[in-house]
Amino acid sequence: MNLISELDPAVNQAATSKPTTLYWCSEETRTLSLDERSALLMQYQSVRQQTERIVQPLSPEDLQLQSMPDASPGKWHLAHTSWFFETFILQPHCPAYDGFHPEFHHLFNSYYNALGTPFSRPQRGLLSRPSLDQVFAYRQHVDSEIARWLIEEEVDGDLANLLVLGLNHEQQHQELVLTDIKHALSINPIFPAYKQESDESHTERDSLAGLSWLSVPEDTYTLGGDGKAFAFDNEGPPHQRYQPAFRIASRLVTNGEYLAFMKAGGYQQPRLWLSDGWAHVNQSERRAPLYWREVEGTWYEFTLSGLQPLDLDAPVCHVNFYEADAFATWAGFRLPTEFEWEIAAWLHCQPDAAERGNMLEAGHFHPQPELDNFDAQTSAEGQGAQLLGNVWQWTSSAYQPYPGFKASADAVGEYNGKFMCNQMVLRGGSCVTPRSHIRISYRNFFYPHQVWQFTGIRLAGDDL
Amino acid sequence: MNLISELDPAVNQAATSKPTTLYWCSEETRTLSLDERSALLMQYQSVRQQTERIVQPLSPEDLQLQSMPDASPGKWHLAHTSWFFETFILQPHCPAYDGFHPEFHHLFNSYYNALGTPFSRPQRGLLSRPSLDQVFAYRQHVDSEIARWLIEEEVDGDLANLLVLGLNHEQQHQELVLTDIKHALSINPIFPAYKQESDESHTERDSLAGLSWLSVPEDTYTLGGDGKAFAFDNEGPPHQRYQPAFRIASRLVTNGEYLAFMKAGGYQQPRLWLSDGWAHVNQSERRAPLYWREVEGTWYEFTLSGLQPLDLDAPVCHVNFYEADAFATWAGFRLPTEFEWEIAAWLHCQPDAAERGNMLEAGHFHPQPELDNFDAQTSAEGQGAQLLGNVWQWTSSAYQPYPGFKASADAVGEYNGKFMCNQMVLRGGSCVTPRSHIRISYRNFFYPHQVWQFTGIRLAGDDL
Amino acid sequence: MNLISELDPAVNQAATSKPTTLYWCSEETRTLSLDERSALLMQYQSVRQQTERIVQPLSPEDLQLQSMPDASPGKWHLAHTSWFFETFILQPHCPAYDGFHPEFHHLFNSYYNALGTPFSRPQRGLLSRPSLDQVFAYRQHVDSEIARWLIEEEVDGDLANLLVLGLNHEQQHQELVLTDIKHALSINPIFPAYKQESDESHTERDSLAGLSWLSVPEDTYTLGGDGKAFAFDNEGPPHQRYQPAFRIASRLVTNGEYLAFMKAGGYQQPRLWLSDGWAHVNQSERRAPLYWREVEGTWYEFTLSGLQPLDLDAPVCHVNFYEADAFATWAGFRLPTEFEWEIAAWLHCQPDAAERGNMLEAGHFHPQPELDNFDAQTSAEGQGAQLLGNVWQWTSSAYQPYPGFKASADAVGEYNGKFMCNQMVLRGGSCVTPRSHIRISYRNFFYPHQVWQFTGIRLAGDDL
Amino acid sequence: MNLISELDPAVNQAATSKPTTLYWCSEETRTLSLDERSALLMQYQSVRQQTERIVQPLSPEDLQLQSMPDASPGKWHLAHTSWFFETFILQPHCPAYDGFHPEFHHLFNSYYNALGTPFSRPQRGLLSRPSLDQVFAYRQHVDSEIARWLIEEEVDGDLANLLVLGLNHEQQHQELVLTDIKHALSINPIFPAYKQESDESHTERDSLAGLSWLSVPEDTYTLGGDGKAFAFDNEGPPHQRYQPAFRIASRLVTNGEYLAFMKAGGYQQPRLWLSDGWAHVNQSERRAPLYWREVEGTWYEFTLSGLQPLDLDAPVCHVNFYEADAFATWAGFRLPTEFEWEIAAWLHCQPDAAERGNMLEAGHFHPQPELDNFDAQTSAEGQGAQLLGNVWQWTSSAYQPYPGFKASADAVGEYNGKFMCNQMVLRGGSCVTPRSHIRISYRNFFYPHQVWQFTGIRLAGDDL
Repeated sequence: MNLISELDPAVNQAATSKPTTLYWCSEETRTLSLDERSALLMQYQSVRQQTERIVQPLSPEDLQLQSMPDASPGKWHLAHTSWFFETFILQPHCPAYDGFHPEFHHLFNSYYNALGTPFSRPQRGLLSRPSLDQVFAYRQHVDSEIARWLIEEEVDGDLANLLVLGLNHEQQHQELVLTDIKHALSINPIFPAYKQESDESHTERDSLAGLSWLSVPEDTYTLGGDGKAFAFDNEGPPHQRYQPAFRIASRLVTNGEYLAFMKAGGYQQPRLWLSDGWAHVNQSERRAPLYWREVEGTWYEFTLSGLQPLDLDAPVCHVNFYEADAFATWAGFRLPTEFEWEIAAWLHCQPDAAERGNMLEAGHFHPQPELDNFDAQTSAEGQGAQLLGNVWQWTSSAYQPYPGFKASADAVGEYNGKFMCNQMVLRGGSCVTPRSHIRISYRNFFYPHQVWQFTGIRLAGDDL
Repeated sequence: MNLISELDPAVNQAATSKPTTLYWCSEETRTLSLDERSALLMQYQSVRQQTERIVQPLSPEDLQLQSMPDASPGKWHLAHTSWFFETFILQPHCPAYDGFHPEFHHLFNSYYNALGTPFSRPQRGLLSRPSLDQVFAYRQHVDSEIARWLIEEEVDGDLANLLVLGLNHEQQHQELVLTDIKHALSINPIFPAYKQESDESHTERDSLAGLSWLSVPEDTYTLGGDGKAFAFDNEGPPHQRYQPAFRIASRLVTNGEYLAFMKAGGYQQPRLWLSDGWAHVNQSERRAPLYWREVEGTWYEFTLSGLQPLDLDAPVCHVNFYEADAFATWAGFRLPTEFEWEIAAWLHCQPDAAERGNMLEAGHFHPQPELDNFDAQTSAEGQGAQLLGNVWQWTSSAYQPYPGFKASADAVGEYNGKFMCNQMVLRGGSCVTPRSHIRISYRNFFYPHQVWQFTGIRLAGDDL
Repeated sequence: MNLISELDPAVNQAATSKPTTLYWCSEETRTLSLDERSALLMQYQSVRQQTERIVQPLSPEDLQLQSMPDASPGKWHLAHTSWFFETFILQPHCPAYDGFHPEFHHLFNSYYNALGTPFSRPQRGLLSRPSLDQVFAYRQHVDSEIARWLIEEEVDGDLANLLVLGLNHEQQHQELVLTDIKHALSINPIFPAYKQESDESHTERDSLAGLSWLSVPEDTYTLGGDGKAFAFDNEGPPHQRYQPAFRIASRLVTNGEYLAFMKAGGYQQPRLWLSDGWAHVNQSERRAPLYWREVEGTWYEFTLSGLQPLDLDAPVCHVNFYEADAFATWAGFRLPTEFEWEIAAWLHCQPDAAERGNMLEAGHFHPQPELDNFDAQTSAEGQGAQLLGNVWQWTSSAYQPYPGFKASADAVGEYNGKFMCNQMVLRGGSCVTPRSHIRISYRNFFYPHQVWQFTGIRLAGDDL
Repeated sequence: MNLISELDPAVNQAATSKPTTLYWCSEETRTLSLDERSALLMQYQSVRQQTERIVQPLSPEDLQLQSMPDASPGKWHLAHTSWFFETFILQPHCPAYDGFHPEFHHLFNSYYNALGTPFSRPQRGLLSRPSLDQVFAYRQHVDSEIARWLIEEEVDGDLANLLVLGLNHEQQHQELVLTDIKHALSINPIFPAYKQESDESHTERDSLAGLSWLSVPEDTYTLGGDGKAFAFDNEGPPHQRYQPAFRIASRLVTNGEYLAFMKAGGYQQPRLWLSDGWAHVNQSERRAPLYWREVEGTWYEFTLSGLQPLDLDAPVCHVNFYEADAFATWAGFRLPTEFEWEIAAWLHCQPDAAERGNMLEAGHFHPQPELDNFDAQTSAEGQGAQLLGNVWQWTSSAYQPYPGFKASADAVGEYNGKFMCNQMVLRGGSCVTPRSHIRISYRNFFYPHQVWQFTGIRLAGDDL
């Protein structure tokens, strides 16, 4: 069953339409017209401006923070995303390009070993110079040069696609700016907010949507994209995969459900845990999701709006893979494989999931509950809720190449392939993922102990 | 394609016949006859005696050594394997059983958290008491009780299979006794030998067998065993798997080929390595397989017969997954998935692979070269060499459950399932694996950085 | 021999006169006059303003940096010094005092365990909030309240002395602001400067002053201060000490002399090193003073004016105790005890050492060479050079209490006494120590491996 | 006041007479007579045999154990002490000497860097080969050669003294054999005993001796030995030291007194602790002396006779310097300096302290209470009890060289001097120190956190 081509039109729309779809040229050698280049420039400017809007509430001191090696300072994200365009577009393809600063090539390389030894990652928070002003000037310099290049020079499909890769890369860092600053602010005992919560919260609301099961029949499915829109190399190539029948939950696991697991002694029972998970629980002394705080018997959660009472109906987030797996075992179910998740999403995603989902543009910056809303189409029979947005959903699949996958030979080839070991696949995007960035075929990946991303749980089971 | 049932009879024989096949009763509730119980006792005694033969060349001091947390002292292996029979057979099923020592339950539990907190693993080498004599007495006590139980009492199929699980468990520890003492002796600058090398080595011999490719066609194969012989739970359940066409190397990668990789700067080129592998290489400063030693420009290898000149034709061993993957990338190929390895083995394994393979009973305790032996059937057209024995072969597959896998609910259920995260699958057995222990469907697993097992490389590629 | 009372008047002046001597009231219960309180307020404002002048060249991002647990961000120093006055003066002694922010008590406590668990020291660099502006507002708030209190209320000698303790405390942090930002900037591969070097350097100059020896006779000396001026509790109580004859070098060890040690293989010869020093050298892979950088065969030094060519005549600095001790052993001498240093300083210090020494107010922020200046009094016969300023001089004395020392019972009692273990005494102040802060009796102390302070070497020997 | 020469004859005897005094020749170039050499050989054989008696209750497996890097296996001690005689006597001074094994020079070097890189200390427990039998053969070989040399060849005073240094060195390792095996056995949950406790314990006995204070007047004392008997280089040279008046406790602190400190919250009050001590308590989670175990509300102590009920009257032992210091602070006193301890011992030591003290030859291997024994001379007026034996007594003095100390230039010069940093001095010997090994001037030294030696507490205070 070829999921994309044989898709029911309504579902197809759900899966592929987005507020803004980023450009993709399937003919690599075709030269773009000026109109196409203008449209591409508008997309470029739109993404770049979104990054700057995201950091607007943050001070130079906030943007200097690096609270752990996994995270980077906001200022570094601002510079590194510019470095990407400079390094992969301007320097190799614009002979007249004049670099902004000779040391930036070294300072803002992330992990491209083929480009020389990157600056030590855990020390990114120690670069007070260049200042934030200088980094904004660097962005401005790169933006001007990209604009000039797009308007004045010949650009073929291959290069246009490389620029769009850069935009997708920048969108990934938009999400990281928010997850990284959340971690950094959480260290501060005065619980600072990235933004104040809107007043509308905590009003009376409908009750939590019930959990039902979506069934998927056994078949040999074709996964891996069709090459007609932008996708990362790790989402392909297209390939067949035999899939036994299974079922998957209609919505995400909530804070209330996770709290029940905790109260039932979930963190004390070794039999619920993978061996490495049990070792991690004991060594890290974790006993709750990352940002939960118990104050005099009441649970709170640190959010980008500061410390808030725990919303029992909202999806649990900031759990690691071990916790997700142990919860599923305790509940009598299991996590879906990444293939099950993807097939279910192609088949059951709501038509307007991307537009209406709780993603970056919704402005919540926090998972929202799925409510029992009778007049809404969100709870339509047979449709899955919360598939896109809210939280990245841990799957039971190790992050490995699809059959036939080959990393490209240039430096951009270090983008995805070299991480295909020791990490687990997550699907679906989160409340801080840009809408035009997510896809049903999107494969995110983190180490099983990592927890500072908005990561949550959807249950699955073998078909009965 | 159901590999076991549709197998060519000759291959079938290769895959399943073994010098001694351990007992298996497919009717769980049937009561065994006295003849069956006698035969089972003979197998029990044979496996138990093999363990004691293996430790015979080692002193009480040797058997006390623990050179790293991953390894255990030989004395501990001797006791722990007895503990298994005591804990899972004698205590629950023989009401009259009188324990040997009240603290042994705690001291010799390995990782069964459901049975209480095990004694700290990295400190096993600190148990000078009980002495080796007492541990042999403990073995004798358990053996007598098992013999009495098998002869005098009613035993059903389920219990018989549990005893056979204990024998397989003991065979795994037979291999570990040898890999662990090899590691411990390697620390000693006087390079002690476990046993002296036989004189026959280093005589003139045939040249190395050339490397050819075995092709396997696309199909949906059935993997996962048929339940008619002993297998670990992780080898099942039976399930279908779609497999694109691929090819796999006819023999293992040799020391000479690996040395060429080293001389070509393999350890200095980040582009050949997985990200975690590159980090591991740099942090561990590894620049060669574990036991290689360069002395005044000549390479030697520490073996269980002491320090020996490196045999360029022998299979490379004691490489970790990262090294295996980097070598394959450098060579322009890749590692096989565990499914590719298994399908290829069902189709191309030599009929007498298990009897003739370089395994524990061969007494080499070290990988042997595959020579160009024209009158031998080992090099028969279309047959794979070195599939069983010599070295465990790293596959590119993360160790994960097969579809429908469920760990059993009792303590023995901790045997395999809880390790299904962060480890990679290895196939084929090694030169220190007992012959009656290996199977084509056998799934071994280690962390990608681990290297003290006899681990090597077989190349694969997409079909051209 | 009572060094202070029997001092030659000229030397006495050298030791005690300073550009500004901080206030000290030897009658603890006497009420201060308004004139005295006004004078004290002027001192307070002068010290507080000096701190702000020091951070003036630094951006909010610079002042956010914490490059290691031993160091703190400049912003933290600005806040913590204010916290000291708030905690020990305003809160206990001004009933009307209104705190600035309820969490600052916790955030800006350094190590006073008696006041509650301090905020985790290695995470001080993660406090982006309060912002630098807020911290300046905090300083302003405390300053206003102190001014009001000093002018309007009754203040006795005891409280006045406590305020002066706070000023000495702030002066210690003035030095730390500079040593900490030097370390942080040194991580940045663009070698940022705290301030540009003045143009006068690198002009032609006199040659390096020769090294001569100052002899001190055997005697029983009285050390430990006379209580007539401010001193930290660890500088007392007065006590007698028998001292054999010894000699001490007339000037500090230079970069050129240290380079000779390096070239002679000093870092490769275990016999020159203390056991812990040799272990530290091998583990840390140190092979030169902290900020030395060899670029294409030429040595440079990172300074607060950026990367500069190494000045061979300047005193070596940023060496740890192990290096100082190994250098002395290699040179055939030893380090002085702290008692020898102090006795020699009382007897041989130049009269104008404090006014003319290379200290914070000199504006060099880097050690300066002692030149052969014939018409200057600096090289007068029998006088020691560079005793005050330039670099803290490692002594061979472990930091331990003087006979009869007792820490005071309140929280300020944690100031010095609890550190009297595992650290070594340093004497003399450095090029970033304020002039009115140093005294001949001043005992600084650091762990033997620490190196980010301006620390150097003066040789000593037994008398011949 | 020259303590040795001006000593009251009775006290002098106490301080210097011992059951066997090891040989010392004060004329370095004099040739020894055959009688002298025979006497020396008897001493040599006596010390060497004592080592072998000490290990007699231990199995080859026991003697293989190394439970932490600070400790060494008993087998290693047996070999290393022989290595000392081979390396410093036989090889340089007996041209005909034939080494026992070429690798032993490397394997059994402890820390003499001048003799080449020693075998990695934390891996000494991994040398199963040579076997214990071979190590005993090595001892026998060295003993025969030493005997032959002493009887047949010319030996001058200098060499004789070097041999006696080797005997003192062996006695230090006799103590370490017992402290190291105690630590190793303590890891084993079956609490094995080195030897069974004698039956006489736990009979009715006198009550604990009361604690009184011994006063010592102010004076300038001469310390540092007179060179007329063996002493380590660090005990000299003789030098004067001014000492204010002080007082010191007549006996050691008991388990009961230490338990009172624990019950009063001693481990919870930061103000009682040195800063490094408080950090160590919190990081190590220590809350009692090393070998105390609380079982259902009752305190036990692991001893060389296995787990025993805590004897409240026995001296507390296995406390580190931080605990000793915190206890003294809590009790309102302080620890003595090493000079105070030594002066008090010269003045107040019981005449028969060495013969009657609880030392190795007493066979207790554990501290014993000081009882109120009216007819005994142990409690004579003005005499200190438990000065020699029972436990090493922490002093407040950092281990530093005496004025004029110089380490000798050869490899034996690494014996003491290079450790004079970061360690604290302990005095008095312990219940596992040989009687002929201890002296009043003896300076032992350990890091302040170390605790596996028999280390205890004697209080001191300033004179009132």
